Amino acid sequence: MPLHAECLWPYRDNREMSASHILFGFHALGVRLKIAPQSIVELYYEPTRRDARMRQFLEKAHEAGVRLIEADGMRLSKLCGSHGHQGVAARTRPLPQARSLDTLLEDLESAQAALPVQERQPPLLLVLDGVTDPHNLGACLRVADGAGAHAVIAPKDHAAGINATVAKVASGAAETVPYFMVTNLARTLMELKERNIWITGTSDAAPRTLYEADFRGPTALVLGAEGDGMRQLTAKTCDQLVSLPMRGAVESLNVSVASGICLYEVLRQRSGLAIHPGGKS
Amino acid sequence: MPLHAECLWPYRDNREMSASHILFGFHALGVRLKIAPQSIVELYYEPTRRDARMRQFLEKAHEAGVRLIEADGMRLSKLCGSHGHQGVAARTRPLPQARSLDTLLEDLESAQAALPVQERQPPLLLVLDGVTDPHNLGACLRVADGAGAHAVIAPKDHAAGINATVAKVASGAAETVPYFMVTNLARTLMELKERNIWITGTSDAAPRTLYEADFRGPTALVLGAEGDGMRQLTAKTCDQLVSLPMRGAVESLNVSVASGICLYEVLRQRSGLAIHPGGKS
Repeated sequence: MPLHAECLWPYRDNREMSASHILFGFHALGVRLKIAPQSIVELYYEPTRRDARMRQFLEKAHEAGVRLIEADGMRLSKLCGSHGHQGVAARTRPLPQARSLDTLLEDLESAQAALPVQERQPPLLLVLDGVTDPHNLGACLRVADGAGAHAVIAPKDHAAGINATVAKVASGAAETVPYFMVTNLARTLMELKERNIWITGTSDAAPRTLYEADFRGPTALVLGAEGDGMRQLTAKTCDQLVSLPMRGAVESLNVSVASGICLYEVLRQRSGLAIHPGGKS
Repeated sequence: MPLHAECLWPYRDNREMSASHILFGFHALGVRLKIAPQSIVELYYEPTRRDARMRQFLEKAHEAGVRLIEADGMRLSKLCGSHGHQGVAARTRPLPQARSLDTLLEDLESAQAALPVQERQPPLLLVLDGVTDPHNLGACLRVADGAGAHAVIAPKDHAAGINATVAKVASGAAETVPYFMVTNLARTLMELKERNIWITGTSDAAPRTLYEADFRGPTALVLGAEGDGMRQLTAKTCDQLVSLPMRGAVESLNVSVASGICLYEVLRQRSGLAIHPGGKS
């Protein structure tokens, strides 16, 4: 199993998640099937649904050795407490609980050390300071997964927890990207620095743009809440601040869109794929 | 007035927008104040709100020569038909109605021709094929404005129109980014090609990534609906297809996040600011 799949234990808000281990919908179940099929106890499906999406999904589940059980729509709705199941639901064992950020980083370090230099991917962390809207958190988790970030970090008292809305918007990423809520964000950032992770904050007032920074080394990207931005102490703790160019009339971007632009710039710089560096032709 | 401000007439859905010319909230009014202060007939504000945001806003309005009128919260709520006015509302003259995409492109061409070569910004268009969710359209308009795109284009029968939700999510960009709904998208793309605009579609199945394409010339980026992607005919009409790297378990990104990543890559390539081209160090 690749490293990425081995450290997949999202933080869970116990009040909202522990009561039931039912997962439903193609997106969420597809991801679970991909990363931890052995955690699926049994999978229920509507046999009257025979479209391509269902056929492919059941094929994958069958190949993964998952136990398949026919169930009609009413039974599925009752099981899920929702009509949005799309004809598939599963009883699952919970994934391992969130370990500490420390453990994650240590595991990352030792896994990296075992790889040849050219294959190493330095840590990439997304830090959200003040993102309290569940839709925004879900969207940030989704793009963090897409860009291959190793974890998302937020301060306990200025953040949203993982709930059903977050998980739905995250389209499966709430299952895959470790999410750590920390008591003291500034202290955590200091600890990241001690691990040689370079902290880059985003700010409208920054003297340089995103594209003038070097993200090829270990990187933590800090994004603040829309409107207010990062808290002052957080901004002070950053090693550097960068801005996103704003060429029109709106003042800022949605935090998940900004996260996507920043994370994919890291990915671009590290990928060795770009053949058109910025520059006037 | 810069070119960008001169071609700012969003498409309007007459059923939803023409009845009232009231604008409210700091975001939407701030943008109107920036791009067309003369279109504000009078501006109402709550004198009991004396925070920094209100003070700065009123200063800008005063400097722009806008007529200011005190009004209490109840009067504002009645005027706006909403409590979300934040203490500011305005009676406005409508901005000029949507001209044709043709006119916009011709104006762009002649304005560019008048500029020194090194200052020219080739056309940048965002094409949305099948984005029917108002939140997604609003978010796409917002990031299109941020990246300085000249217009957003969508097929009439597979798109959302501009309504109040779109305008709110767009945070002012529904006022600034021209939005054209066209009858036949494939035909419009052919017409763009005739104007030497290079059409790049995004597709999971594309053989190259976004970072291997050259966006320094006139560019139209085509994004499809989440899940389904572009329609087949649209994909066939593209000059090239590119993919966004997906490093995790989720299958796709939200369309506004993907739009942001693509549009800002164009901006990066054109900006001459990047000092760290992709590449292993």
